[in-house]
Amino acid sequence: MKRILARRALLPTGWAEDVLVTVRDGEIVEVTAGVPSPPAADLTAGIVIPGLTNAHSHAFQRALAGRTEHRSDADRDSFWTWRERMYELTGRLDPASLTAIARQAYAEMLAAGYTSVAEFHYLFRDPAGRDDADAMFEAVRRAAADCGIRLIYVPVLYERAGFDAATPEARQRRFTMDVERFLAHQERAAGSASGRVTVGIGAHSLRAVSESSLRRVAARAAASGAPLHVHIAEQRREVEDCLGATGSRPVRWLLDRFDVGEPWCLVHATHVDEAETRDLAASGAVVCLCPSTEGNLGDGLFPLERFLPAGGRIAIGSDSQVTINPFEELRWLEYGQRLRSESRNVTSVEDPHVGRELFRRVLAGGAQAAGAPRCGLAPGAPADLVVLDGEDPMLAGHGPATLLDALLFSGYRVPIEHVMVHGEWKVTGGRHVDRTRTARDFADALARLGLESP
Amino acid sequence: MKRILARRALLPTGWAEDVLVTVRDGEIVEVTAGVPSPPAADLTAGIVIPGLTNAHSHAFQRALAGRTEHRSDADRDSFWTWRERMYELTGRLDPASLTAIARQAYAEMLAAGYTSVAEFHYLFRDPAGRDDADAMFEAVRRAAADCGIRLIYVPVLYERAGFDAATPEARQRRFTMDVERFLAHQERAAGSASGRVTVGIGAHSLRAVSESSLRRVAARAAASGAPLHVHIAEQRREVEDCLGATGSRPVRWLLDRFDVGEPWCLVHATHVDEAETRDLAASGAVVCLCPSTEGNLGDGLFPLERFLPAGGRIAIGSDSQVTINPFEELRWLEYGQRLRSESRNVTSVEDPHVGRELFRRVLAGGAQAAGAPRCGLAPGAPADLVVLDGEDPMLAGHGPATLLDALLFSGYRVPIEHVMVHGEWKVTGGRHVDRTRTARDFADALARLGLESP
Repeated sequence: MKRILARRALLPTGWAEDVLVTVRDGEIVEVTAGVPSPPAADLTAGIVIPGLTNAHSHAFQRALAGRTEHRSDADRDSFWTWRERMYELTGRLDPASLTAIARQAYAEMLAAGYTSVAEFHYLFRDPAGRDDADAMFEAVRRAAADCGIRLIYVPVLYERAGFDAATPEARQRRFTMDVERFLAHQERAAGSASGRVTVGIGAHSLRAVSESSLRRVAARAAASGAPLHVHIAEQRREVEDCLGATGSRPVRWLLDRFDVGEPWCLVHATHVDEAETRDLAASGAVVCLCPSTEGNLGDGLFPLERFLPAGGRIAIGSDSQVTINPFEELRWLEYGQRLRSESRNVTSVEDPHVGRELFRRVLAGGAQAAGAPRCGLAPGAPADLVVLDGEDPMLAGHGPATLLDALLFSGYRVPIEHVMVHGEWKVTGGRHVDRTRTARDFADALARLGLESP
Repeated sequence: MKRILARRALLPTGWAEDVLVTVRDGEIVEVTAGVPSPPAADLTAGIVIPGLTNAHSHAFQRALAGRTEHRSDADRDSFWTWRERMYELTGRLDPASLTAIARQAYAEMLAAGYTSVAEFHYLFRDPAGRDDADAMFEAVRRAAADCGIRLIYVPVLYERAGFDAATPEARQRRFTMDVERFLAHQERAAGSASGRVTVGIGAHSLRAVSESSLRRVAARAAASGAPLHVHIAEQRREVEDCLGATGSRPVRWLLDRFDVGEPWCLVHATHVDEAETRDLAASGAVVCLCPSTEGNLGDGLFPLERFLPAGGRIAIGSDSQVTINPFEELRWLEYGQRLRSESRNVTSVEDPHVGRELFRRVLAGGAQAAGAPRCGLAPGAPADLVVLDGEDPMLAGHGPATLLDALLFSGYRVPIEHVMVHGEWKVTGGRHVDRTRTARDFADALARLGLESP
């Protein structure tokens, strides 16, 4: 049992003072606000907030950070030239290097305030093309277990190279599995889930799976209660290809043919028209936005300004790992909307305070994308929390109204002191507890993969 | 004398290894690459880069960070509703609170890798309306001296409320001075310049000064060699007002009537048409871009993609202090261009590597905006430098080609260890040397100003 006494804590009902949080067996068992006199506590904290879910991660892409920001020979760089570089990396990854890279990414996520990660996973074969799905899952699970992040493993089906059902290119074969083997793998993974690991299911994208296979995936999700994740409408070319092949835009196609609702997490959904935006919002599905990756890849801007007032639900993801900082994601999520509309405070739909509203939305949306029934600092929720230095100048003079505005919109060093996952401290004094070994193994893996730059 | 031995250092000719940098009297006196055996050094460093100039700062706005991210009663928030909140603050500032707030902002700039700051200053009167210009300059100078940042003091003329020569509103009277008193103030300030303080000159904006007064300001700049800073074309309304009053767009009006060239620093220039973009690039003036503030205020995106190939020069500024991190500024400067063009690696015009090109450009552009003849790690340049942890996972495996790509485009904690200004260490172990006192005085100033949030 651990007891944390917080000067201020963000509860489901809002900020409270002098809050005692009691934790046992990885769960929060009691939360008492306004405790009259300082009780004995294992930690006296300034400010405590719940940890966030990183709802879309490709952990292995951490190895690419900083390695794709140069012009290629192509006429114009784009998502598609970036993808070539990503394929080069996937052609070399083995379980050991995947563990080392993912562990580095996960340790950085923890230090940045993410306590859960949904790993959108399609590395199912070894470099020679042999089915290696269980070993690759084990590599991800070991990375998460080593550094202590809560893992939602989301294997995603990848069958084909495009809407025309083209045979995958050689480099895409790392990702492919037939639907039977895929479902068997997902079932084995789900069977091995435990306290800090849960298992979802997904499809890489509409271009990569057939309608009939997607029905099998959706049926499994419905039967097992697993969240169902899918990339969608990230790029205009994908929208055009879908229109060409089906006569519908991707989101429209999906909404028309599937019972899209709360278990669904649609990743990006960048290119949606007004009707798609409205209907997607009404569906109850969560849209996972990844502002730094969408900026880095030049995807475009999701119409958040229309989506939220229509009841839309959102989560955030670090996706390509080019930025690992939920507060930078949320800041630039709002700034993208401001730059497009040339106005301010765009996503303050239900709460005048943008920071408070965005944080509340992505906390709930992240839990929904994780298939987690409970979130936040409340009895029965996972003991996943972040301790901030209440004396840091970033937060000086801020009270309940503006604390989250300051946290999201002040682009200084985020004053995270400690991070707890499942009742255990994984970040202390601002650093991941196993930072040195993690960094050394990561550097060794980059060297083995030949990823050192000249 | 101090000697720093760097495993790698970024010299004007590019990255070099085993570099010995010798510093005396605030200047770099010798730089030797490839030193054969480790000599005695005061500091052995992983990676050394030159410090950057923050070319546009309103230090006092640090007190507003996190305090304007909520909807107002206005129909739609914008730059103009934000300005109301900024005016409320300026109505209360006295020299002591200005020093405390500016010192906090400057300490954060140093810890983030800025070693110089151009303070665009128009707080010339006390709250009662009395001329207090010299005391307010002294307040800024003391803040800079206390925390050790190099200061370019840029007093800017503010005469009127708009192009129609309207009398300033009561709240704008803090900023106004007639041109004679302004020039006298600027001259006194310039006369008191010393090692770490230089003095520029400027005009708040075209809407705030008459053409004849701007001629006086430009004549002083030309006669004294001072850089000349002006806000321009940040908002569409300003463009429309200028068109209405003069028949020209702001940048066009300025280019037509003034000898705009290297001494000029045009801040924002967000709303420029193609011909303005081309002619501004050809002028040799530097455009100071402030991506986080422009995002926060919903200003819009500068057409960098056209400006750079036309020979344009750029600097960056933290402006409203909502973000103090040059690497986040540069990252999102490029991302804004990517999001607009839906492509990647947009600002790699002369160098395939975006990070290397942007860093080189803003280093040179910042020095130009500062009126500094020398910059970079070279004999004769100021001893202003940043030491990075070469073993940090952000930089693991990166060599000369991609080190700056990684530094600019990896949104993790920037691994700054130490920062030197004018030959003195002002940041050690990642923290400003006087962090505790600075933070305490800042919090006290916020309380005195009644800026604590409920």
